[in-house]
Amino acid sequence: MPKKVDHQERRTLIADALMRVAAAQGLEAVSLRHVAAAAGVSAGMVQHYFRTKDEMMTFALSVVRERSQIRVTEAVARLGANPPPRLLLRTLLAALLPVDAHTRDDGRVALAFLAYTAVRPAAGTGLREGTRQLTEFIASLLPDRHDASAAAGLLALMEGLGVYLLGGQYTAEQALGALDAQLDLLFGGSAAG
Amino acid sequence: MPKKVDHQERRTLIADALMRVAAAQGLEAVSLRHVAAAAGVSAGMVQHYFRTKDEMMTFALSVVRERSQIRVTEAVARLGANPPPRLLLRTLLAALLPVDAHTRDDGRVALAFLAYTAVRPAAGTGLREGTRQLTEFIASLLPDRHDASAAAGLLALMEGLGVYLLGGQYTAEQALGALDAQLDLLFGGSAAG
Repeated sequence: MPKKVDHQERRTLIADALMRVAAAQGLEAVSLRHVAAAAGVSAGMVQHYFRTKDEMMTFALSVVRERSQIRVTEAVARLGANPPPRLLLRTLLAALLPVDAHTRDDGRVALAFLAYTAVRPAAGTGLREGTRQLTEFIASLLPDRHDASAAAGLLALMEGLGVYLLGGQYTAEQALGALDAQLDLLFGGSAAG
Repeated sequence: MPKKVDHQERRTLIADALMRVAAAQGLEAVSLRHVAAAAGVSAGMVQHYFRTKDEMMTFALSVVRERSQIRVTEAVARLGANPPPRLLLRTLLAALLPVDAHTRDDGRVALAFLAYTAVRPAAGTGLREGTRQLTEFIASLLPDRHDASAAAGLLALMEGLGVYLLGGQYTAEQALGALDAQLDLLFGGSAAG
């Protein structure tokens, strides 16, 4: 009887190699050849699971987004039931910042994806819906729930802090300090939450 | 007598081709081969002026930064002598946002460079000094001149708005609305400036 190939296992092996290449060398270095070498399989094997560069990029981002979502959910769960809005917001946004080794790896992949979609707008369709939902949720936690501009600004501030953390322009302390200062501004400097 | 090659002219020709490739296909698509094809010269000729990919990337960013600086200087000059701090800050930050075709092309190059340096920290040394100087200048214009966190946050907000403009997550109107809302927060909602 021929040995049955475990497709799920093989896909996971290749996906892990893809993420390692992306985190170490940048998403632009992700190619069939590189990923195959990192996974120890043939380029044809990689192509069986990811046919194009676009498919590899989209997959890498989906992994990063899933991990971010898990991080946020866990951090928020640790707050217990009904946390004050400011604390909830701070916890959520801080969990999205690339401040340790794992989140930095993921942040590099996300940033490379943003640069990639900036020249290929069609690839970024999913991002737009995610951003819209997130700004609405942020707005629902702000003292003035109808201030869409403040919510959009706070999310942009988080994104910019992430970019500067990855580039080494800001330290983790500076980034978190800027986030707290922003929440002070939005919540009227109140210590509540 | 042999024809004297105009090096400056040829370098400009190749540099223009490099910027066209970067703006259209992304900085990760910038290769000796692509740039040579776009300039209508040999790959060897491109290599004579830019020996490595790092040199091409760094050059592309220097062009983008020079153009940004000119845009900011011109926009600020149009304000006349002694503009109010808030108006000066708004003008400076809005001039850095990718809201039209030219600034979008430059923004895409800058974003790709940020993604590139996120996996190659040494390439980003120049960025860090530029960011430090800019946050200091921003702080000097804020009502509380010693608030380094507010200045760092405002610059990060501008960077994040730029990222979302390039990705199509925010429209120009939304981005400028978020910038104005932030200046309202920082300047106490005063209409001055």
